[in-house]
Amino acid sequence: MSGTESQIASGFAQTAASLSAVAKGFHARGWLLGTSGNLSAVVSRDPLRLAMSPSGVDKGELTAAQILLIDEQGQVLNVGAAKPSDETLLHLQIVKDRQAGAVLHTHSVWNTILSDLYATQRGISIEGYEMLKGLDRVRTHEHREWLPIIDNSQDMNSLANTIGETLARNPNAHGFLLQRHGLYSWGIDLQQAKRHIEILEFLLETLARTLEVKR
Amino acid sequence: MSGTESQIASGFAQTAASLSAVAKGFHARGWLLGTSGNLSAVVSRDPLRLAMSPSGVDKGELTAAQILLIDEQGQVLNVGAAKPSDETLLHLQIVKDRQAGAVLHTHSVWNTILSDLYATQRGISIEGYEMLKGLDRVRTHEHREWLPIIDNSQDMNSLANTIGETLARNPNAHGFLLQRHGLYSWGIDLQQAKRHIEILEFLLETLARTLEVKR
Amino acid sequence: MSGTESQIASGFAQTAASLSAVAKGFHARGWLLGTSGNLSAVVSRDPLRLAMSPSGVDKGELTAAQILLIDEQGQVLNVGAAKPSDETLLHLQIVKDRQAGAVLHTHSVWNTILSDLYATQRGISIEGYEMLKGLDRVRTHEHREWLPIIDNSQDMNSLANTIGETLARNPNAHGFLLQRHGLYSWGIDLQQAKRHIEILEFLLETLARTLEVKR
Amino acid sequence: MSGTESQIASGFAQTAASLSAVAKGFHARGWLLGTSGNLSAVVSRDPLRLAMSPSGVDKGELTAAQILLIDEQGQVLNVGAAKPSDETLLHLQIVKDRQAGAVLHTHSVWNTILSDLYATQRGISIEGYEMLKGLDRVRTHEHREWLPIIDNSQDMNSLANTIGETLARNPNAHGFLLQRHGLYSWGIDLQQAKRHIEILEFLLETLARTLEVKR
Repeated sequence: MSGTESQIASGFAQTAASLSAVAKGFHARGWLLGTSGNLSAVVSRDPLRLAMSPSGVDKGELTAAQILLIDEQGQVLNVGAAKPSDETLLHLQIVKDRQAGAVLHTHSVWNTILSDLYATQRGISIEGYEMLKGLDRVRTHEHREWLPIIDNSQDMNSLANTIGETLARNPNAHGFLLQRHGLYSWGIDLQQAKRHIEILEFLLETLARTLEVKR
Repeated sequence: MSGTESQIASGFAQTAASLSAVAKGFHARGWLLGTSGNLSAVVSRDPLRLAMSPSGVDKGELTAAQILLIDEQGQVLNVGAAKPSDETLLHLQIVKDRQAGAVLHTHSVWNTILSDLYATQRGISIEGYEMLKGLDRVRTHEHREWLPIIDNSQDMNSLANTIGETLARNPNAHGFLLQRHGLYSWGIDLQQAKRHIEILEFLLETLARTLEVKR
Repeated sequence: MSGTESQIASGFAQTAASLSAVAKGFHARGWLLGTSGNLSAVVSRDPLRLAMSPSGVDKGELTAAQILLIDEQGQVLNVGAAKPSDETLLHLQIVKDRQAGAVLHTHSVWNTILSDLYATQRGISIEGYEMLKGLDRVRTHEHREWLPIIDNSQDMNSLANTIGETLARNPNAHGFLLQRHGLYSWGIDLQQAKRHIEILEFLLETLARTLEVKR
Repeated sequence: MSGTESQIASGFAQTAASLSAVAKGFHARGWLLGTSGNLSAVVSRDPLRLAMSPSGVDKGELTAAQILLIDEQGQVLNVGAAKPSDETLLHLQIVKDRQAGAVLHTHSVWNTILSDLYATQRGISIEGYEMLKGLDRVRTHEHREWLPIIDNSQDMNSLANTIGETLARNPNAHGFLLQRHGLYSWGIDLQQAKRHIEILEFLLETLARTLEVKR
C-alpha cells in the first residue's frame, strides 16, 4: 500500500463511521425512511475518492462496514461491497461543481410537500429568518435564499447535467430540491453539510406550517 | 428434536429477536401505541411456521421470549406462551396469498385518518413520488400505487376472505388499509416488510399534510 | 418492621422503579413537559398506600428515589421526601371510585386543545375506531367512548368532588379531561393505565388532525 | 489558584456537564438544529462568571469540554477555547436584569412561526392554561402571561439595550421572542430555566395548533 493509499484507507475508515452516525440521526428524525436518501463525503481530492452509503440499505442500521469507496467515475473500489446508489453521479457532480467535502440527500415529508407546492415557481424563496445565518457565508437574517426546484428524473446523466446548470445559474445556493423527491445540500465538510440540512429542513417545515397556521 | 425441528427452533430464536427490535422502533414512532398492531415473520415454509407478536403486549417492551410460534391453522406451538392475536388469520392469509416472508400491521395517526377520509373511494391512489421506488419491483417515480381500503370487522374469518379477494383483485398492491383501523404491508423478508411500512407511512403522512397545506 | 410493612416496602421499591420508567417514556413524547402531570400506583389496599410522583420534578429525570409513599389521607410517609402534588387528592378519589391500581395524568398539546375545543359540549365522543378495543372491557370498534370534560379549578377538594360525581354519572368512562389542563386515565395496574393513556392520546390526536385535514 | 478560583473551576465543571445534557435533549426535540440557539448558566456572582455554549457547535454533540467560561464583559477566560456566541451580551443583560442563574435560547418551528404571526401586536398573550403554573411565582391557571416580541437585529449592543427596556417594562415576563428568530427564557437556576423553556414551547405549540384546528 502506497502512502496515498494508506492515507485514503485511514481517512475512509473515519469518514465511514461519521457517515453512519449522521445516517442514524437523520433516520430517527424521519428524513431517511425506507432506505431512501444517501450520504457521501470526500476522502481524498487527488485522486478523488468518495465514501458513500450504498443502495437499498436501512439508514437506521447503516454500519461503517457497509459504506462504499467510490472513484471519480462512480465505480466502487472496495471488494465485495454492495451496489452503489443510482444517485452517485449526482453526488460527484456537486462535489466537483461546489468543491464540496460532503453531500447529503434527505427525503422528509416537508421537503417533499414543498418541492411539489412550489414546482411551478421553479424554486422557493426563504427570507428574513435568523436561522439562515447558519448557512455558509450568510452573516445576517436579512438574506434571501433561493432554493431551486428541479424536475425529477430517472435518467441520472441528464439529471446530473441539469443539476450542473442549476448550480451554475445559482452560485450562492446552499441546496436544491428535486420535485416530489427530496432535498440535496452540501458543505466544505460533513459537519457543515449536516448543519445545512438541519437548517434547510427547519426552514422548509417553518414555511409549510406557516401556510397552515396563516391560511 | 429432528433436523427440521432444530432448524425451526434456531430460525425462530433469530426471527423473534428481529421482530422485537422492529416493534420497539415502530412503537417509538407512535405506530404501535397501546398494544395495538402486530408483527409476524415466516420461520419455515414446510411445515409453515410463523413467529408472531402475541395479543395485548406493550410493543415498546416486546421481548423475544414473548414471541409466539404459530402453525398454519393459527395454533400456538410454544408451551406456556401468551394468547395469540385475533388477527393471526389475517397474517396467515397474506403469507399464503403473497408468498410473504413477513407481515407488519401498524396503527398510525395518519393511516387511521386517511383510511377514513378515502373510505368511500375504496382506496387511495399514490402517484409520482420518488419514495415509491422503495416498493418492491417499482423502478420509477412514475408509478401509481393503489392502496385498497377494506371495511373493518371483528369477524376474522370473513375479514380474511375479504382480504384474500382484495389481494387477488390487486395483484400489484404492496399493502392495504382497514378503515379506521390501520395499515397492513408485507415483504419477502422482515427487512423488506419494514421498508414497505416506512415508505407507505411516509407517503400517507405526505398526502395528508399536503391536504392541510394546500387547502 | 411488620410483615405488612415489609411487603409494602418491597412493593413500593418495585412500583417506584416502574413509575420512573413510564415517566421518562411519556416525557420523551412531550406529554409531561415542564414538570407537568403526575403518576401514581397502588402499593397496598389495606392499608391504602400509593406510590406517587412528587410535585415540581422533571419527569424526564424522575428517579425511583424521588417517588413518594402516600397514605389514604394524602399524607407523605417516607422521611425526607419532597412535596406531594396538589393533585394527590384527585388520584386518591379515582383509586377509591374505580378500584384503580394506577392513575396517570398527562399534559399533551392535543389533549389540551381538545379539552378546550369541546368544553361547551362537556365531553368528547370517540366512536368507530379499532384502537378503542385497547380500552378495558371494549370488545369491538363499534363502541362509543364518552370522555367527559370537567372545568379546571385550583380548589382540590371541590375538584375531587366533581370528579367523583363525573365518575358516578359515567360508570364506563376510561378517562376524563380537565379543561385547558390535561387528561386523566387509570387501570387495574400500571401496565393497563399506560395502555389507556397511549390509546386516548392517540385517539385525541387522530380526532384533532382529522379536523385539520377535513376542514 | 485562590479559594474563589478553585470554587469557580469546580462549579464550572459541574455546570458545563449540565449544560451539555440540556443541549442534547433540546437538540433531539428539534429546538437547537443547525448549531442554532445557545445556553448559559452562572458559575459565580462575584466576580460574575458564566458557563456558556460557544458559537457554531452542533448542540446534539456539545461536550462539557467545549463550554466557555465568560466574564462580565463577555470575554472568554478559558485558554484555547472556541469563539463565543454573538449573543453573549444578551445573556449577560438578562442575567443582570433578572438576577437569573441560567439563560436558555431555542429556535423551534413553533416559536419562529408565532414570533412572526404576532409581531405587529408586539407580543403574545397566553391565558387560562394549567401549564402556566409551571412558571415561577404563578399559582393558578387564571394567569395572563405576556410574551413580548422584539424586532430581530444583528447589532448586539442595540439589541441588548432593547431587551433591557423590554424586561423593565414587563417585570413579570418569564421570556420573550425575537421576531423570526427564537425564544429566550431564564430561571433562578438551570433546572428552572429548562422548565420555563419546556412550558413556553408547549404553550406556543398549543396556541399555533389551536389556530389550525379552530380555523
